[in-house]
Amino acid sequence: MEHVKLYDTTLRDGMGGRGMSLSVGEKVNVARALDALGVHFIEAGFPDSNPKEAELFERLAELELENACFVAFGMTRRRGVAAEADAALVALTESFAPVVCLVGKSSPFHVEKVIRVSREENLAMIADSIALCRERGKRPVFDAEHFFDGYREDPGYALECVRAAAAAGAENVTLCDTNGGTLPHAVAAATAAVGAALDGAAEVGIHTHNDSECAVANSLAAVEAGARLVQGCVNGYGERCGNANLASILPALQLKMGFEVVSAEQLASLAPTAHYLDELCNVASDGDRPYVGRNAFAHKAGMHAAGVAADPSSFEHLDPALVGNDRDILPSELAGRATIRTQAEQAGLELDDEATARAVERLKQREHAGYHYEAAPASFELLLRREAGRYESLFKLESYRVVTERRAGGEVETEATIKVEVDGVRYLRVAEGNGPVNALDKALRLAITERHPHLADIELTNYKVRILDQDHGTGAVTRVILDSADGEREWGTTGVSENIIEASWQALVDSLEYAFQPRADAAQPAVGGATTSMS
Amino acid sequence: MEHVKLYDTTLRDGMGGRGMSLSVGEKVNVARALDALGVHFIEAGFPDSNPKEAELFERLAELELENACFVAFGMTRRRGVAAEADAALVALTESFAPVVCLVGKSSPFHVEKVIRVSREENLAMIADSIALCRERGKRPVFDAEHFFDGYREDPGYALECVRAAAAAGAENVTLCDTNGGTLPHAVAAATAAVGAALDGAAEVGIHTHNDSECAVANSLAAVEAGARLVQGCVNGYGERCGNANLASILPALQLKMGFEVVSAEQLASLAPTAHYLDELCNVASDGDRPYVGRNAFAHKAGMHAAGVAADPSSFEHLDPALVGNDRDILPSELAGRATIRTQAEQAGLELDDEATARAVERLKQREHAGYHYEAAPASFELLLRREAGRYESLFKLESYRVVTERRAGGEVETEATIKVEVDGVRYLRVAEGNGPVNALDKALRLAITERHPHLADIELTNYKVRILDQDHGTGAVTRVILDSADGEREWGTTGVSENIIEASWQALVDSLEYAFQPRADAAQPAVGGATTSMS
Repeated sequence: MEHVKLYDTTLRDGMGGRGMSLSVGEKVNVARALDALGVHFIEAGFPDSNPKEAELFERLAELELENACFVAFGMTRRRGVAAEADAALVALTESFAPVVCLVGKSSPFHVEKVIRVSREENLAMIADSIALCRERGKRPVFDAEHFFDGYREDPGYALECVRAAAAAGAENVTLCDTNGGTLPHAVAAATAAVGAALDGAAEVGIHTHNDSECAVANSLAAVEAGARLVQGCVNGYGERCGNANLASILPALQLKMGFEVVSAEQLASLAPTAHYLDELCNVASDGDRPYVGRNAFAHKAGMHAAGVAADPSSFEHLDPALVGNDRDILPSELAGRATIRTQAEQAGLELDDEATARAVERLKQREHAGYHYEAAPASFELLLRREAGRYESLFKLESYRVVTERRAGGEVETEATIKVEVDGVRYLRVAEGNGPVNALDKALRLAITERHPHLADIELTNYKVRILDQDHGTGAVTRVILDSADGEREWGTTGVSENIIEASWQALVDSLEYAFQPRADAAQPAVGGATTSMS
Repeated sequence: MEHVKLYDTTLRDGMGGRGMSLSVGEKVNVARALDALGVHFIEAGFPDSNPKEAELFERLAELELENACFVAFGMTRRRGVAAEADAALVALTESFAPVVCLVGKSSPFHVEKVIRVSREENLAMIADSIALCRERGKRPVFDAEHFFDGYREDPGYALECVRAAAAAGAENVTLCDTNGGTLPHAVAAATAAVGAALDGAAEVGIHTHNDSECAVANSLAAVEAGARLVQGCVNGYGERCGNANLASILPALQLKMGFEVVSAEQLASLAPTAHYLDELCNVASDGDRPYVGRNAFAHKAGMHAAGVAADPSSFEHLDPALVGNDRDILPSELAGRATIRTQAEQAGLELDDEATARAVERLKQREHAGYHYEAAPASFELLLRREAGRYESLFKLESYRVVTERRAGGEVETEATIKVEVDGVRYLRVAEGNGPVNALDKALRLAITERHPHLADIELTNYKVRILDQDHGTGAVTRVILDSADGEREWGTTGVSENIIEASWQALVDSLEYAFQPRADAAQPAVGGATTSMS
């Protein structure tokens, strides 16, 4: 079986994404996770750029990797300077990383108009720089920036550039679609032309961006045309629309195109690794992400859910377990007993026939009243727990009151008071908040965390409101969805009422009660969400 | 130039996405926005499924579209039943929609194992159903479900299915990658084979899903292989990983592949339309989305930003203005002076250079603070009116207070008190409501309608809340969008605050003030342009 290698650039090109910023320690953890996944090359960044990078390189040099090797990244030598006199280039050759990736120009427009050197000088810059790295014991990779634009402009010159790199000793020549504008047919044709031009003198690689929503397809098209190394980022981090998403490229190469990339065990760790990387990078995981998203194998439409129950392959392109993901049947009006039973099992609950029938009935009533459990699996689990006799009440509410006031001076203030009974003890508490839900949450936590201190760690991470069947504004029903997290797990709860405060209150109570329920299997995530696990 | 047509299925297949749920009024607004964008076919759903759908079809039947035509969606006849005796099929032929799309099987596995009919019966089901639609004056489209899986299994039978549809009178045969697992080279090969097999007897279409992150590339590959209709959703809504994203397909077809799809003006409304649809669907817009995302032309890496300053084409694959987007930090299409001036003209306002500059500045500040005017054109018009000196204040607020209380008995009660000055007279009023916004609205109306009785007729028709940059629940900013109507017009307003009550108050005040402003041309809809107008 033929091999294709993965080259992850999260630590360098991925950092171009809006809001992306990692500490040295987080970068080390990213490298460990990528190594465990079986990625072959991990691009660490520029070795000489600043003290933080210097510290990173020191830390990375000490890491013992199982699979990957590190790559130091830099540019070809400056114009008119000998390679061995270019300090940045020399620093690259002195870094601990065995592989050095040099980016250089291959488009006449960029050579003549942007960096303003002659075509010949650019070829010399490429050749000298690669040769220096090779002489000093490094394995050089040449990243041909704007290659596809250059190839459109002047195919002959673009090919000369990559031939120069190969002739000087580049182990790999990677063709970059730097602006992300190229479509698959053009990538395939140019990659094939490079393969023919190099004739085995260097391996061909591909580096794409997602500006045309074709980064994955472009990478796969290049592999079909002969590329054997794919640069990108797990989860597709990066500037603008991101780099090519290795989390989608890896399973396609291995499960659909017959290449050997990583082991089956490593592939089965793909989804949790992708979620863990999102956590490290402080990025909200996109549920719709192919292969790894929590919705990627979620079925809602009645016909699809029935089809999947009969034979998963009828509406799934592959077995989610192969990529470490899970099937998810979304609770909806169409859900039958079989679905309810599956959901209960996933939560470690046993429902007999009678309890199942009651749960189906209860779900229908609730959905008719406006509840919607797809985004609130924790509230759904509480519903099942009540029917299974596995529900424990956290507190008893006597009353609450929330006051929001805009004073004559313009200040807005909110205050909530609450009267509850926890373990037989009555608590009266008051709290201020930046809004009514925040104030209620604070007052309730003051009351219950005296007895249950661990519930103080829960964070409300997202809050959504929808008005249902708006009957001209009044009498409308409000549905609230609340997401919570405690550092280990995330869960969603819901509340429905004519009154937005009461709907929010219900979702808030469900959130805390869900966290309070004893769990048969502590590792078991919420219903609906084997997919929400982050480990 | 050759044409390719777009077929949007947001109202049907898009509704399979997690949490997707739209009221009838919102669906009508989706249809209007798609029509203004220049989409050719708008799939409305199943005409007979429930009272809500029946109401939708009644509303859609009254809409006057500029560009699009509606499609009713259903299945081929049941097995062993004559087409004219199949009630669901007959309902399709009786719907107002001129085009009917019928989904049917084309994979032997689905024919024999899932729906369990003979291969011959399946061919008859296709032919009979298409023929009935044609006889009864409809333009039939055949959606060949699981076509690419079927073609892999048994190419001969898959082709027989599409030939049966074409022979029975299908105007278009659309090949569906229902499970989203097919890669572009396979899509291209199968599409070319269909083209050869049909030999012009019917147009070929493509319908893909994003499970392999190749939905866009698959659609483009099919067009290269001869398809001339693309099904999908603007923004790629849908079950699992979503349908093909028409917002990425449209610019690729028109700007990169040389097809004629929509007008240049319509293409330049793509980004605001995509954002408006996200607002309607209550979906957080993904900033990294190709072409339309706020990051799509945002440059962070120093070298790239410098390159773009020198020549945008050095790091941009196309001019963002072509798709209604902006370079770098500007999050909306409204930011340029020319645009502001156009918007002002649409509202019958004159802005001189200085006022325009102030409006641009004010807009930037507001958007930085979290305001978002795409779905709130009336608030935007008020902003312009203030700069144009054409704003009249309705009242002066002294203070308000809202109390929501859940009593010991379980009843929830809400009361608002308000102190305002209207035309120099001070009013103190109190009102109860089913929620805090309703109570505030009632108290405010009590105060102002004594002087301005016509403002009593305004109805609040929709209310949306979004939490921005959720910084662990607290300190988050809340954005409220409020839709109002007075029987003649509909308008959207917005408010932003840490406090949901205060944000709602701002939107409420804007709604009433907007209705109160004197209007040069009473028929003129709110600012916000073709894509955000709601009248």
